[in-house]
Amino acid sequence: MNFSKISAIEYYLPSKVSTKEDLLLDNPDWRMDDIEEKTGVKRRFICDKDETAKDISILACNQLIGKKVNRDEIEFLIIVTESPEHILPPLSCTVQDCLGLSTSIAAFDVNLGCSGFVYGLMLADSIICSQGYKKGILVCVDTYSKYIADDDRTCRPLFSDAASAILISSSNKKTIGPFVLGTDGSGSDDLVVKNSGTKSYDTSVAKSLFMNGSQVFMFTMRIVPKMVNDLLKKSNHDINDIDLFIFHQASKLVLDNIERLLKIPGKKVFKNYSSVGNTVSSSIPIALAQAEDQGMIKKDSLIMLAGFGVGLSWGATLISLSKK
Amino acid sequence: MNFSKISAIEYYLPSKVSTKEDLLLDNPDWRMDDIEEKTGVKRRFICDKDETAKDISILACNQLIGKKVNRDEIEFLIIVTESPEHILPPLSCTVQDCLGLSTSIAAFDVNLGCSGFVYGLMLADSIICSQGYKKGILVCVDTYSKYIADDDRTCRPLFSDAASAILISSSNKKTIGPFVLGTDGSGSDDLVVKNSGTKSYDTSVAKSLFMNGSQVFMFTMRIVPKMVNDLLKKSNHDINDIDLFIFHQASKLVLDNIERLLKIPGKKVFKNYSSVGNTVSSSIPIALAQAEDQGMIKKDSLIMLAGFGVGLSWGATLISLSKK
Repeated sequence: MNFSKISAIEYYLPSKVSTKEDLLLDNPDWRMDDIEEKTGVKRRFICDKDETAKDISILACNQLIGKKVNRDEIEFLIIVTESPEHILPPLSCTVQDCLGLSTSIAAFDVNLGCSGFVYGLMLADSIICSQGYKKGILVCVDTYSKYIADDDRTCRPLFSDAASAILISSSNKKTIGPFVLGTDGSGSDDLVVKNSGTKSYDTSVAKSLFMNGSQVFMFTMRIVPKMVNDLLKKSNHDINDIDLFIFHQASKLVLDNIERLLKIPGKKVFKNYSSVGNTVSSSIPIALAQAEDQGMIKKDSLIMLAGFGVGLSWGATLISLSKK
Repeated sequence: MNFSKISAIEYYLPSKVSTKEDLLLDNPDWRMDDIEEKTGVKRRFICDKDETAKDISILACNQLIGKKVNRDEIEFLIIVTESPEHILPPLSCTVQDCLGLSTSIAAFDVNLGCSGFVYGLMLADSIICSQGYKKGILVCVDTYSKYIADDDRTCRPLFSDAASAILISSSNKKTIGPFVLGTDGSGSDDLVVKNSGTKSYDTSVAKSLFMNGSQVFMFTMRIVPKMVNDLLKKSNHDINDIDLFIFHQASKLVLDNIERLLKIPGKKVFKNYSSVGNTVSSSIPIALAQAEDQGMIKKDSLIMLAGFGVGLSWGATLISLSKK
């Protein structure tokens, strides 16, 4: 039996930073202190007008290639994105060419948001375990800023653009899994970009992100504790066995309430939303990389990853990092 | 070790048929006899204006559910599409709810075109083999008609809208694989819908499908014979071992030339493009279902499936159907 492991994580945040003052310039009536108190987000990273998911994916991948992996060792490229340059062709194909990867690689895009890293990890693990692949890159990338209206008080204070590139390799030891994954499409309309696909709306409907904040919050409170407990049960672990929880960095409000509902000690819950914002599917890998840089991950640490969002969709898993 | 198998295939073609006469009404100057001679396509199935990938996916899935599989046995839903209703949320989440599937299912969209069925099959096989899933549905669905301009002589005569629903189950015998998958993004621009994602073009660029027919044809001639031979080598088979070849039903021109280059007897190459058109990722599963209905598949038949197209992307595998 083959297993897989996370061998390296790199990420890229755009150089343009959007501050409280920037948001107030566009929206003088926003109570930014109240918003910041609730979201916890103090700055956001935003792509330039012509900077796309392709561009920042390449920048993230190039931090891995030639440093943590040789170009010709890469056998697959999975890109998780909801903001590709085009609805077709797939972003992963364009990126394969820009990175000069072999034409023998398997490449495909997965359309998921804040649960996307966990799903992408499940797919990378599955194809390594069952199809004989040895090394590949999972990219999580989104540029939600391109969908967000300047005066959207729900979304604009929260989301950052980002790309992360995760090297996943075969392993003789199980370091990833099991997975708990779920889906509730009854909340499809709670996070949506209308007029973005083939469904026709009357032309007055803007092509911009809509988030029903209170519905998504209630979904999170209902689903995340259950998902955590389901994963503990599936893996025969007690909540105290987990050394570090890396939740999707939705917002301060969401993370504080998850911590409270699950009675997890705050020091076991990694948080970087204040400095990074909500980076959608990159949020867990960026948090994982920063937690490691900050010395919060030991050789045998058992880490729970949990993502949740658009779809509505959720996923959690357990990992250990054995790259050292 | 777990394996997987294709347990059932159902499909849905929209009720609206587009004939040679329909195309001539819009384009009186088209030489339809010449076009039909080259493409081999005699009719196309086209969604109504308000009929979407969601609608036809549900119609295809409902031919499986309650008949070939109980609703509560379904553990995952993979949708391969390049024409979802929205770029977010994922179509698979919306369809989960419309079908009344359990919220415990894993659901995700894969963005691929004519290679998408083979990739989707690889993913379904992988998650069954490695994550303990027992039954799930792979949906392939596209409604390219929504992207095609009325006067597009390259695309309009070729493409049909369609949805297919493939039930994939765990198996104690290997019936799927190995896979040969590949990617060449240097041809990304040869099949593209500009202004469909986040990349900005000047506003004069239409949001419609563009296909560079001669480039895509040359790619096919270069890649498909190599892919077939790579798969034969990987699986230790001689080309004569294969009982039936099901290629993506690109067009008469493409299939005739593949047959010629590979020196495969015509009776071993299934063709349905004339009555069905090119249905993108549904093309292989629809062909497989029709070949079985026509008695062309025996219990131990070794079948090669090969898809190729947008990306540019390609994939091939070997299967046997052991559902009976």
